[in-house]
Amino acid sequence: MEQPTIGDAFGEMIRDAYAVRTGIGPRPLAGGKYPRPVIEVIERDDGLINGAPADHYLDEPGDWQSYDRRALKLCRGRVLDIGAGAGRIAVELQRRGIAVTGLDTSAGAIEVARKRGVLDTVLTTVDEFARASVRYDTFLLLGNNLGLLESAERAPVFLAALARLAAPGARIVAQGSDPYGTRDPVHVAYHERNRQRGRLGGQLRLRLRYREVATEWFDYLNCSAAELETLLDGTGWRLKSIDDRDRPYYLAVMELRT
Amino acid sequence: MEQPTIGDAFGEMIRDAYAVRTGIGPRPLAGGKYPRPVIEVIERDDGLINGAPADHYLDEPGDWQSYDRRALKLCRGRVLDIGAGAGRIAVELQRRGIAVTGLDTSAGAIEVARKRGVLDTVLTTVDEFARASVRYDTFLLLGNNLGLLESAERAPVFLAALARLAAPGARIVAQGSDPYGTRDPVHVAYHERNRQRGRLGGQLRLRLRYREVATEWFDYLNCSAAELETLLDGTGWRLKSIDDRDRPYYLAVMELRT
Repeated sequence: MEQPTIGDAFGEMIRDAYAVRTGIGPRPLAGGKYPRPVIEVIERDDGLINGAPADHYLDEPGDWQSYDRRALKLCRGRVLDIGAGAGRIAVELQRRGIAVTGLDTSAGAIEVARKRGVLDTVLTTVDEFARASVRYDTFLLLGNNLGLLESAERAPVFLAALARLAAPGARIVAQGSDPYGTRDPVHVAYHERNRQRGRLGGQLRLRLRYREVATEWFDYLNCSAAELETLLDGTGWRLKSIDDRDRPYYLAVMELRT
Repeated sequence: MEQPTIGDAFGEMIRDAYAVRTGIGPRPLAGGKYPRPVIEVIERDDGLINGAPADHYLDEPGDWQSYDRRALKLCRGRVLDIGAGAGRIAVELQRRGIAVTGLDTSAGAIEVARKRGVLDTVLTTVDEFARASVRYDTFLLLGNNLGLLESAERAPVFLAALARLAAPGARIVAQGSDPYGTRDPVHVAYHERNRQRGRLGGQLRLRLRYREVATEWFDYLNCSAAELETLLDGTGWRLKSIDDRDRPYYLAVMELRT
């Protein structure tokens, strides 16, 4: 078995999902003829694999989870949408007259976000972008992107980059998932194995695969609100509120310490 | 990265797809709460991966591809449905008063087929089953199961097993896919690589993955009608007809040589 090519798997997938939804661009076909559904395949380092339709990345607000809609009400001032993907959040913020920059590391995702009307985009990492002199009032991490904290080692570095980009009084609005409510033995064993290796229980090691392309392996953190609070210790940020009405999913608001 | 557990990945998937469609049995959930779509993930040995919703394995005749409906009209006498899966074909044959045995190597698939009403099932390989004294008039290989010919080496062995199970005048009705119409460079390169290794161009090396479980790697043959005819040389079978109205998919009818 050969390994897949390392590349912009997320972007390839988003491009195809966009083509299927809009009819713009070549649509993926089976047998050169039949529409092929666009499926996101995520592999975990314990051998678990999951497929899910990718179409939700393009969902209109009416189809969003309710926590996403509540998250938008928590935005203040100028917004940096981190991991903006196909731009569903940024497009809606623009519609509401809110200044927003969509940041993503996927060239394909940024291309689609721009086609969908996102005016201000950056194709880069948060770390690189923190060298810019621009400042934001809200950092949005939706679509489970609290996961971008990655690990106990990476979280303070990531949060420091956001602090550098922060206007006075800035906040982070992030959607996370508490992984510890599960009784699925596959997940329970994975959490335990992680802890034995000195990792956080929900510190997932993943890669995304789409057709012949895969991302590198990366960490993606599902943590409890209590773990999040611990991760914030010693950073410039403090936890202001948790909205866990849609448990295990939650919205966390963090503010700069004063 | 650890390898997945080897097991009945197909059966696990079919069980979940059945639970989602009928509400019978535990349904797969995301976050312990939200319905998780059941996706079949197929990995190819060049690193290609494809996901597709598994629900079609349970489709009613009204939702079938037209070649599946045409295939049923080609059945004569007692039918052995090879790779019967969740039993969609066998259930319909029973409804029409046709005697049918559903054969599959997946325990989970057989379990679901029985729940759906398939009365006569066998959980075994064609090779093992050929030791039985039962005889059939039609061998059905639908759902692309002409692929079970696997390779130039395996095809005559498989076909000899069917000949042992054949009543006088028996036929094979098989649905195949001609892989060579594609211009997708990933597939064209794969065919070429196969040929360089002494394999048939469309001799796919695959494994199926579902959550933490995978099948062993296996060969699955997509061949042209011309290749099929060559594969039949020296076997007890001859090609009687090809229906390629839905190219690249086709129905092949093979009969015992007299």
